[in-house]
Amino acid sequence: MFKIAVLPGDGIGPEVIEEGLKVLSAIEDKYKLKFDVKKYPFGGEAIDKYGVPYPEETKNACLSSDVVLLGAVGGPKWDDLEGDKRPEAGLLALRKSLGVYANLRPAVLYPPLKEASPLKNELLQEGLDILVVRELTGGIYFGPRATIAIDYGFKAYDTEVYQTSEIERIAVIAFEAALKRKKKVTSVDKANILDSSRLWRKTVEEISKRYPEVELNHMYVDNCAMQLIKNPSQFDVILTSNMFGDILSDEASQLTGSIGMLPSASLREDKVGLYEPIHGSAPDIAGTKKANPLATILSVAMMLEYSFDLIDAANDIKDAVNKVLEAGYRTFDLGKGIILNTQEMGDKVVEYV
Amino acid sequence: MFKIAVLPGDGIGPEVIEEGLKVLSAIEDKYKLKFDVKKYPFGGEAIDKYGVPYPEETKNACLSSDVVLLGAVGGPKWDDLEGDKRPEAGLLALRKSLGVYANLRPAVLYPPLKEASPLKNELLQEGLDILVVRELTGGIYFGPRATIAIDYGFKAYDTEVYQTSEIERIAVIAFEAALKRKKKVTSVDKANILDSSRLWRKTVEEISKRYPEVELNHMYVDNCAMQLIKNPSQFDVILTSNMFGDILSDEASQLTGSIGMLPSASLREDKVGLYEPIHGSAPDIAGTKKANPLATILSVAMMLEYSFDLIDAANDIKDAVNKVLEAGYRTFDLGKGIILNTQEMGDKVVEYV
Ligand SMILES: CC(C)[C@H](C(=O)O)[C@@H](O)C(=O)O
Ligand SMILES: CC(C)[C@H](C(=O)O)[C@@H](O)C(=O)O
Repeated sequence: MFKIAVLPGDGIGPEVIEEGLKVLSAIEDKYKLKFDVKKYPFGGEAIDKYGVPYPEETKNACLSSDVVLLGAVGGPKWDDLEGDKRPEAGLLALRKSLGVYANLRPAVLYPPLKEASPLKNELLQEGLDILVVRELTGGIYFGPRATIAIDYGFKAYDTEVYQTSEIERIAVIAFEAALKRKKKVTSVDKANILDSSRLWRKTVEEISKRYPEVELNHMYVDNCAMQLIKNPSQFDVILTSNMFGDILSDEASQLTGSIGMLPSASLREDKVGLYEPIHGSAPDIAGTKKANPLATILSVAMMLEYSFDLIDAANDIKDAVNKVLEAGYRTFDLGKGIILNTQEMGDKVVEYV
Repeated sequence: MFKIAVLPGDGIGPEVIEEGLKVLSAIEDKYKLKFDVKKYPFGGEAIDKYGVPYPEETKNACLSSDVVLLGAVGGPKWDDLEGDKRPEAGLLALRKSLGVYANLRPAVLYPPLKEASPLKNELLQEGLDILVVRELTGGIYFGPRATIAIDYGFKAYDTEVYQTSEIERIAVIAFEAALKRKKKVTSVDKANILDSSRLWRKTVEEISKRYPEVELNHMYVDNCAMQLIKNPSQFDVILTSNMFGDILSDEASQLTGSIGMLPSASLREDKVGLYEPIHGSAPDIAGTKKANPLATILSVAMMLEYSFDLIDAANDIKDAVNKVLEAGYRTFDLGKGIILNTQEMGDKVVEYV
């Protein structure tokens, strides 16, 4: 029996998680499965209750589960806390404690949602199907940092740091993913400036020799930020560092116009994974029933596929989402159509599953 | 007599510089001025001749001139050189030696070029007129760095570092610029993760108290990468660090669809400045006469305005460029119209000046 630790979190997190779990139950019924699902406090909610964003109890539960399903964390209420006491610090600690170094963020244009993309239609003719593979447990997110008083004011620093083994293992993930896709990896760095990027480029180059079927090209991060807009269909898999991946995956997802639709998986060598929608906690719409639960529902599908090898069940969910969209159902963020609220959208997907 | 050090550089650099100087001569004639214009080797060209990208002679000339006008540097020929021997190292040394810490990058949509923008027309209804103010002589571009052999492979690091005084002076530039525009500054950082960003945010907040007329908001860099695409007209002045500015200014300029049109100025407290088109050396089209010289021509206009206080002359150039576009003239990169090559476009602007 698979053990699932669920962290609803803050803002719209609990609302979209509810719908994700609803769809998961539907899968249990359909396939006569039983998952062991338990919820734990995390993020701002945990700060309010226990003073810390990632309490021991939650950590123990996550570490002894097969997967973690996360809603979203953060909100203005906790924005003035110090660095290590914020909801985001909990997220970083969660990723690090699970050791899930490979963050997979698919940015896909759903054909029925073409109109929601900010890009001109002629740029979308070949569709948009990019997988950003972002390194998630290294780089400037975890390197040495400090703020030091000096003669006039302060000096503050953060360190972008990578070692060969960290780059190798994330590169392997990207090349393996490319094998199942269009066999193209674009590795993004700033090797014309950064030492860490030059090590990145050299190491990726080495790993690529094991994958002669996969085409590798390198791109500077500034150029990639342009190329994503100019010609998004040139990309298949984008492989990059934690910081650059944070920026580029958000940019890529915005191009689809349906950020409320996009799931993510964070993985390590074995089948353990952390699954979450890529959208945030959206405190402004929390409680209004406007949240789009599809990103969480699709995160559940990724969980079934990557961690549980339940490919049919995963496909059922993906097909159901496609059919719901094709039938014209939309949440508020997706533009014109038959507008459903959060719960109604969850129910509709269950119906099609 | 103003002294101008001209560094044509590599790729299309010399070609677009030629046209910029042509327009500068036209201004000399029209206003009975005389500029002292001399060219010096820089970038790949200088590496080939002297083994270094920023030779002493060039450095001395730049430091004793009123302004530096730069074409572009770099190309595949020099891509395999070590970090400190590359054309880009010359660019960094140039910026640092001049002390031009404030990089101003306007991203403007020229109404006749609306169709060239990758964004859907409804997003462009209010136009697009963003000024990115990028810190240029600090941050991870200049912090401590190293590559160290370890048990398995290497460990490489780079340091993002800022101190209060550096943030203060660039913030002042942004607020002053906003006063002359729509009075809105968006400061971009990653304060939920980075120590340096938290110092950045606090310092900008302090400076903003001197500018009660200017509205300040803070935005995370990943969100900014999205918002630029989702709703670009929300921005007036974007204030950010060297690394984030590199990425976001390229993204913003791509949104205009006319990166070949965009100039930049790099300034310090006095009137000394470095002016350059934001596009690169484009080795693929060098020698084909396809390069768009308008970004360089508009950089000349910025130079006249910011460093020489020749506002009328600067406006003449800007008006001429607008009229040329309105009359339907285009270079290859700008899409449909009466297509001119590099020289013809330079001549056309001279004609309208
Ligand atoms: C909330 C924040 C710490 C986080 C990150 O930067 O990794 C988020 O932006 C993300 O991309 O998951
Ligand atoms: C060429 C490169 C070093 C440079 C930078 O990163 O600053 C360029 O991208 C720019 O933005 O001027």
